[in-house]
Amino acid sequence: MSSVITLTTDFGLSDAYVASVKGVILSINPKAVIVDISHSVEPQNIFQAAFILNTAHRYFPDNTIHVVVVDPGVGSIRKAIILRTPAAYFLAPDNGSLSYVINDICPSPATPITTLSPSLELRNIGGDLEAVAITNPVFWRQTVSTTFHGRDIFAPVAAHLSLDVPLKQFGEAVDSVYAFPIPHPYYNSGGNLIGSILYIDNFGNLITNIRDSDLPREEVNIKICGQLIQEISRFYAEKEGLVAIIGSCDYLEISLKDGSAATFLKAKVGDEVKLVLKRGRRAA
Amino acid sequence: MSSVITLTTDFGLSDAYVASVKGVILSINPKAVIVDISHSVEPQNIFQAAFILNTAHRYFPDNTIHVVVVDPGVGSIRKAIILRTPAAYFLAPDNGSLSYVINDICPSPATPITTLSPSLELRNIGGDLEAVAITNPVFWRQTVSTTFHGRDIFAPVAAHLSLDVPLKQFGEAVDSVYAFPIPHPYYNSGGNLIGSILYIDNFGNLITNIRDSDLPREEVNIKICGQLIQEISRFYAEKEGLVAIIGSCDYLEISLKDGSAATFLKAKVGDEVKLVLKRGRRAA
Amino acid sequence: MSSVITLTTDFGLSDAYVASVKGVILSINPKAVIVDISHSVEPQNIFQAAFILNTAHRYFPDNTIHVVVVDPGVGSIRKAIILRTPAAYFLAPDNGSLSYVINDICPSPATPITTLSPSLELRNIGGDLEAVAITNPVFWRQTVSTTFHGRDIFAPVAAHLSLDVPLKQFGEAVDSVYAFPIPHPYYNSGGNLIGSILYIDNFGNLITNIRDSDLPREEVNIKICGQLIQEISRFYAEKEGLVAIIGSCDYLEISLKDGSAATFLKAKVGDEVKLVLKRGRRAA
Repeated sequence: MSSVITLTTDFGLSDAYVASVKGVILSINPKAVIVDISHSVEPQNIFQAAFILNTAHRYFPDNTIHVVVVDPGVGSIRKAIILRTPAAYFLAPDNGSLSYVINDICPSPATPITTLSPSLELRNIGGDLEAVAITNPVFWRQTVSTTFHGRDIFAPVAAHLSLDVPLKQFGEAVDSVYAFPIPHPYYNSGGNLIGSILYIDNFGNLITNIRDSDLPREEVNIKICGQLIQEISRFYAEKEGLVAIIGSCDYLEISLKDGSAATFLKAKVGDEVKLVLKRGRRAA
Repeated sequence: MSSVITLTTDFGLSDAYVASVKGVILSINPKAVIVDISHSVEPQNIFQAAFILNTAHRYFPDNTIHVVVVDPGVGSIRKAIILRTPAAYFLAPDNGSLSYVINDICPSPATPITTLSPSLELRNIGGDLEAVAITNPVFWRQTVSTTFHGRDIFAPVAAHLSLDVPLKQFGEAVDSVYAFPIPHPYYNSGGNLIGSILYIDNFGNLITNIRDSDLPREEVNIKICGQLIQEISRFYAEKEGLVAIIGSCDYLEISLKDGSAATFLKAKVGDEVKLVLKRGRRAA
Repeated sequence: MSSVITLTTDFGLSDAYVASVKGVILSINPKAVIVDISHSVEPQNIFQAAFILNTAHRYFPDNTIHVVVVDPGVGSIRKAIILRTPAAYFLAPDNGSLSYVINDICPSPATPITTLSPSLELRNIGGDLEAVAITNPVFWRQTVSTTFHGRDIFAPVAAHLSLDVPLKQFGEAVDSVYAFPIPHPYYNSGGNLIGSILYIDNFGNLITNIRDSDLPREEVNIKICGQLIQEISRFYAEKEGLVAIIGSCDYLEISLKDGSAATFLKAKVGDEVKLVLKRGRRAA
């Protein structure tokens, strides 16, 4: 078992909440290596947490334990789960925080959706995935608050898991977990590829749901928030103004040289991006 | 000895001050495990540092070394101390930063106060506590600046302490240290329990000085900043609007569903919270 | 080889970029001790990154590996380098990020400049310094993005370096690297010492390029942004209002008691500070 435990939360860094989680982990496994992924998720923004986790988890050692606690339903009846993939363990409330991880391995059975939706759907677990509900209080802190399961349940369970306690001891297997569907890019009737913004990063870069492999072979113009970008560039330094580029996570990103594309375009998550074939336009 | 060293400071995270402290510690004890509690204490806000430390230290392994550097008097005559409790070591300027730790073990000899006060009082050390003044320069950096004792004195002393240097070698024992009194909730002449806000967290939750064990057995209304909350809830997700709840540190907290209670109520540390017995009101 | 690797970037802490870098390092060297110096460098502000690194690196263990990624030219033709000094290793784009490190060991051959300039100059490497261009893709991630060399090149190279891979295996030696000249204080025709602000920290302290050893033996008045400070104090707590003090990194700093000198003075990096000899003024 790797002893790397990552943390993704909306706790912020100014209070002692994150430190309490780390203290509990180190009290159980003093050799745990704890890495912060982010504690600046917008309060209770599960979509954002899911995307941030998605861009980080694949770079960690095998069997890393990823703990995600963005938990508007803490203390209510929502389940807490451990999801095991071939590469890693994920601990989170069963509230959609692991949607990208689940979609990567178990694509949605329904018709792909095209716009961002907050509706969770139940996904069957199987094949390469395994999941348990965290129900065995033996591995929790002795006193469990109703408001801070990150410290009282997720932290000690992650620490015990890093000490090779078998998955099944933490609770009964479950055969389905919640995920929200990730919107797919699609071709509209005019032959243009339509995508949408999944995430806006700290620099104001707009990260879309269009991957390198989705790109048409032809040259394209990019239309977003009323602006036109002439082409997809190869790197940031190439030109001035708005730049469309395949970013570090393999998604098409819109950036502004020396500024925030999000602020400049007044863009928000869910906004449409349209790729217009140049050949098509010449033919028109 | 545990090799966990925690840091609580007002240094912020954008400059290299925190990193310098960590570099000094790792230069002396390469196996030290350093955990940030918070570096976002308001500049020179000793009350805030004391509360943040209070909510985190009890979750760390036995014999953890907690370093607290919020130090408006750096370079002047204030003492630097190491306080040993049965559970941990605390290094700080002798300026009240350890007030909660001290109050937990040595309650104030004076009449409990009811409002937050910045007046430090000398407390006798004894019984389960031991303290030394950090005066032996053998364990300091060779050059000590007048402005950055966190790096030049506290960091190397913490590192040497984590290497099992005996407490007494760092300086002479002291028999009293400074603490500010923590305000206690009290019953007013109308039979209502009066408390006050000790801390406002990053989410805008208002954390009061009323603990679970202080609560009257009867149902209560909560009055704060001109608003009325009908009851104490069991968890955040239970209802809309303002919620009163026993929080993760066992204190009564006031939260706003999907928002900041502090902003909504224009609340500040020290503001009064009143628990009005419902039975009492019916009788009136 | 020390296994301490430090990170200085403009990635911010809210996205997963920093975590990706750490994941890559830990995948290659699970025993690496990773320390954040700062991730809050202003986007693409190489001067600021260089100063922050300068104030931290000397406090780390020998042979620490410092990774600095503030990289406006990522994906273009700028080189990536490893610089070895007697004390440490530095990995960065060859864009001036290591200017203070280089200036400390190889002073500028040209006439010292007196104002901050963004013009990079080539410096010959030799004597105590050694440098290689990072060109051997054997040590990179298998897929290298055009936008995130921090994760795909610098992180794996740092991790392999921490595992004792010899410097020369990462690429060919280079005999010059870029640095920007650090402005020196100078005496003007009136006999006053003229310096400038190099850096403004998180507290609003103004850190100048005047070192303790530059100070005249006589008492001085300090003029900055139209204000007069009567003397150089020994520590922060000494007086009210604006204070001039030799700070923790041995530079003359201007601080405001209980406030931000930068905000109060509307000061910015590059602004002049003038030390006027008191004796000189009496003689006038």
